[in-house]
Amino acid sequence: MPSYTPPTKDLQFLLHDVFKVSEQSITGYSDLDRDFTAAVLEEAGKIARDVLQPLNHVGDAEGCTLENGVVRTPTGFKEAYDQMCEGGWNALDADPEYGGQGMPAILNVSTGEMFTAANMAFQMYAGLTHGAISAIHAHGTDAQKETYLPKMIEGRWTGTMNLTEPHCGTDLGLIRTKAEPQDDGTYKITGQKIWISAGEHDMSDNIVHLVLAKVPGGPDGIKGISLFVVPKFLVNDDGSLGDRNSLMCGGLESKMGIHGNSTCVMNYDGATGFLIGELHKGMRAMFTMMNEARLMVGMQGYAQGAVAYQNALAFAQDRLQGRDITGPKNPDGAADPIIVHPDVRRNLMDQKSFVEGARAFAMWGAEFIDKSHRDGDDEAEAMISLLTPVIKGFLTDKGFEVTVLAQQTLGGSGFTKEWGLEQFVRDARISMIYEGTNGIQSLDLVGRKLGQNGGKTIMAFFDLVKTFIKENEGNEVLANGFLEPLKQASKDLQAAGMFFMAEGMKNPNNALSGSYDFMHLFGHVCLGLMWARVAKAAGDALEAGSTDTDFLESKIATGRYYMRRQLPITSTHLARIQSGAEPVMALDAANF
Amino acid sequence: MPSYTPPTKDLQFLLHDVFKVSEQSITGYSDLDRDFTAAVLEEAGKIARDVLQPLNHVGDAEGCTLENGVVRTPTGFKEAYDQMCEGGWNALDADPEYGGQGMPAILNVSTGEMFTAANMAFQMYAGLTHGAISAIHAHGTDAQKETYLPKMIEGRWTGTMNLTEPHCGTDLGLIRTKAEPQDDGTYKITGQKIWISAGEHDMSDNIVHLVLAKVPGGPDGIKGISLFVVPKFLVNDDGSLGDRNSLMCGGLESKMGIHGNSTCVMNYDGATGFLIGELHKGMRAMFTMMNEARLMVGMQGYAQGAVAYQNALAFAQDRLQGRDITGPKNPDGAADPIIVHPDVRRNLMDQKSFVEGARAFAMWGAEFIDKSHRDGDDEAEAMISLLTPVIKGFLTDKGFEVTVLAQQTLGGSGFTKEWGLEQFVRDARISMIYEGTNGIQSLDLVGRKLGQNGGKTIMAFFDLVKTFIKENEGNEVLANGFLEPLKQASKDLQAAGMFFMAEGMKNPNNALSGSYDFMHLFGHVCLGLMWARVAKAAGDALEAGSTDTDFLESKIATGRYYMRRQLPITSTHLARIQSGAEPVMALDAANF
Repeated sequence: MPSYTPPTKDLQFLLHDVFKVSEQSITGYSDLDRDFTAAVLEEAGKIARDVLQPLNHVGDAEGCTLENGVVRTPTGFKEAYDQMCEGGWNALDADPEYGGQGMPAILNVSTGEMFTAANMAFQMYAGLTHGAISAIHAHGTDAQKETYLPKMIEGRWTGTMNLTEPHCGTDLGLIRTKAEPQDDGTYKITGQKIWISAGEHDMSDNIVHLVLAKVPGGPDGIKGISLFVVPKFLVNDDGSLGDRNSLMCGGLESKMGIHGNSTCVMNYDGATGFLIGELHKGMRAMFTMMNEARLMVGMQGYAQGAVAYQNALAFAQDRLQGRDITGPKNPDGAADPIIVHPDVRRNLMDQKSFVEGARAFAMWGAEFIDKSHRDGDDEAEAMISLLTPVIKGFLTDKGFEVTVLAQQTLGGSGFTKEWGLEQFVRDARISMIYEGTNGIQSLDLVGRKLGQNGGKTIMAFFDLVKTFIKENEGNEVLANGFLEPLKQASKDLQAAGMFFMAEGMKNPNNALSGSYDFMHLFGHVCLGLMWARVAKAAGDALEAGSTDTDFLESKIATGRYYMRRQLPITSTHLARIQSGAEPVMALDAANF
Repeated sequence: MPSYTPPTKDLQFLLHDVFKVSEQSITGYSDLDRDFTAAVLEEAGKIARDVLQPLNHVGDAEGCTLENGVVRTPTGFKEAYDQMCEGGWNALDADPEYGGQGMPAILNVSTGEMFTAANMAFQMYAGLTHGAISAIHAHGTDAQKETYLPKMIEGRWTGTMNLTEPHCGTDLGLIRTKAEPQDDGTYKITGQKIWISAGEHDMSDNIVHLVLAKVPGGPDGIKGISLFVVPKFLVNDDGSLGDRNSLMCGGLESKMGIHGNSTCVMNYDGATGFLIGELHKGMRAMFTMMNEARLMVGMQGYAQGAVAYQNALAFAQDRLQGRDITGPKNPDGAADPIIVHPDVRRNLMDQKSFVEGARAFAMWGAEFIDKSHRDGDDEAEAMISLLTPVIKGFLTDKGFEVTVLAQQTLGGSGFTKEWGLEQFVRDARISMIYEGTNGIQSLDLVGRKLGQNGGKTIMAFFDLVKTFIKENEGNEVLANGFLEPLKQASKDLQAAGMFFMAEGMKNPNNALSGSYDFMHLFGHVCLGLMWARVAKAAGDALEAGSTDTDFLESKIATGRYYMRRQLPITSTHLARIQSGAEPVMALDAANF
């Protein structure tokens, strides 16, 4: 069975040496001194390691069961959930006005990675609640906020998002769920929603469903969609639970992974719902939740990669097989540990250099969120909006790839259930699919985000890279293997953007055919930038006399690996992009 | 649930238009006229589609069970196996002297792909038997051949290969299983073997285990290993079954996929074994079986990709979601089929261009086998020896990747068990691991095969590509998008080889650090060559007036896609290779 070691040291290094949180002027960051974050991370890490991780296999093996409309979660999940609520972990960054702790997102992403790495299926219950909290917080009336937020932040009520129906997922304009207005201002919701994560379960007193539906007579398609809050139990005026609402879990999905999370078919049969936000503006309200969920899913990708890598590394250091070709490293043993072999190293370094770079990237994203949410910084808001599809799409594609690489490190053992690596692969796989498939992320990126604010945000991104390179031209650590590759990769990204502008005008398919490669190209540039920043911070610490040389030097070496062996793929992505629509669209659909 | 459509048309096209089998001078090829192969493929396709494929999900859901040493295979497996034996499908290319049908390997790989695509876990029972037949055929005494081959070729007895032990897989020099010589010339075999596919089951009357063991007093390590045939039931002189041998299935492995195949722990407790081949030369004998198994596993990779792609394509043509950005394609429907969207196309074309190219590559490999086995062509033997790790490693890595891409085409449905795509992913995953992990394949390629015959074989490969390009310089179809990329990719492969020669001398890790990328680079060049040959054949057929224009033109377009959008990655592999050992080996093992 796999184990989990919380990466608290790396998280501390990123928070304080790379992002220098307590030196930043972002509201609330000044509280994040080393001791405080160390205490928080230490405690979160303990729960992840000792409480959540041991339940990860249990959740996979037992799954959820449905009987007479009641969903039972795996053994131990409820107790663990209660413990998380008691510790306030689900509400770390929630609004203190409603009982949250008001911590910055950058700290929440740090603890969230550990909970998710330890038990992804479990953490989804709280994760979706978090998104529902944000949506109600942003779009609900004061009365709605007071009714729902305190209980949800406490964790006693959980939340869900209901978008997909059997005949439509991506194309939400087609939804059929109806919301009929009643005289008392409520709506009767009728329809079927599928793939509703945590749609029904036994861990909380109430479940607050956020449901997309159409009010009859409204505009066609996406413009006629509204968002409703539809609680499992209606809430009395005094806040106590009232009648059971007319909604039921109609079935559990049988899935490849995340068995510990209940994925429900939800049937709404004239259930009482309350409009959230404006009528027919439901997509905007849902996107508050969706954007947050996308960042969470991006985290799931690298978090699964992170725990898989840890276990692959432990195996590689332990398993004796063959000899180092340059001379035995374990002469007294029957063989050397397989980590001596270059191809095993190549595999491990691909894993490590991604996981640690991705961790930095997600924290960087959280910094933009904090700037936006705490200080109303519109440019930061635009930047995280641009980066969201990259974080979701790139980090889940590569995170999944890392779980596969880690499984490979174990050879035959990786394929057995006993060693647990195969569960990471199966769990991570969904992250590429839900909250908008990664193909949809790439369309969002190229079709919407690139052009936002007249292209100002993508230009700001390029400036940011350029400025970093310029400011650090004299840095000796960066001069050796960082700045040149970063410059080249960034040039490839710009060339791809130019291609889209020039050729996309002639035929939009010229841009859309390259969207997926663009998302990956963009992701690599971001990780390249992250590694350059990490290496700079490590170099600075060494120069300042830090004695933690092994850790700091290995950061620089891992960064160099990324720049040398991962970044060159940007040229291939560019070549694919520049081939345009012609090769992609050449076949008639009938001739496939 | 997924379905399967046998690719008989494509197989016929490859056999007759690309490889022109009946025009070749290889012994037995003159019998392979269009009508004959059409009849064989048609019949094999029917069984694959109607008998094996419906059992694929059954095998996954039920798995195998072990009770009191008896392994029960999933419902329907035995009946289907009997039907395969009756039809002679397991012995299509076996020696007629022992009851086989003596067909060329190129036909066997064509039918084998269909059986494997339809039900990989099922087909493994016959596949391993096939390898055991070859090993006994090549290394057994006449008496051994007469004892075992007819029953195995008939299918009434199956075979296994026993290499791995709990503490060693790749490093077989460490095995502990003992073979103690007895006065009657037999050996007593004692030890434990793990991950033995089809080690115990209820489909055949006897199971013929080929077991690696050490005879006490022999040389240390790999040079002291011998190969033994250890039947489940001893065989009487008259060929009837005698005593039950002292061997038992001690447990079934719980695995990520191929649940329909029984993966056994095998305990040998003084079991009677018979030496096969020379004492202490067991690895050579086992390699006859292993090389064959590696080619079979390469086929598993693209066969799973092939069936996954088919189902992804069907979904993409059926699922209505969104509108073609250049104008509705299904104006009367609520939305267009998702195949209109460029990013869905990109995904499908990546799948299609790999699967069809891989099919050609495997058949090309079979042609070398036929030249070698039927006509004693040593150069062909050397070539297939060089290509074996590429076929195994590249086709399984990419085949798995295709199953993941296909799953992605289905969005959320791809993650559910109901649609069956996730089973292809889980089943295909093992192909990258067993019969030598793909990392081991890359070491075999770079460490052994590149240098074989003083480098003559790799030079012969380059000549073959060069000659093809030269001979077809005037070909209009190939001039447009084929020859130039092929030349470039081949140059990258040569540059990588040069780097290994120059830098590997200084430090072998400079070569070994790039072995995995080299294997992929090599695979791409092979598929590039295949697509050029396919396009040439399609162009020739069109020029000769074939009216099958849709099929032939789509072949050329798919080939162009591969050359334009897949082949450019060779430059990235070269860049990774040329970075040498330094970035890979920079960290101390302790500093990971």
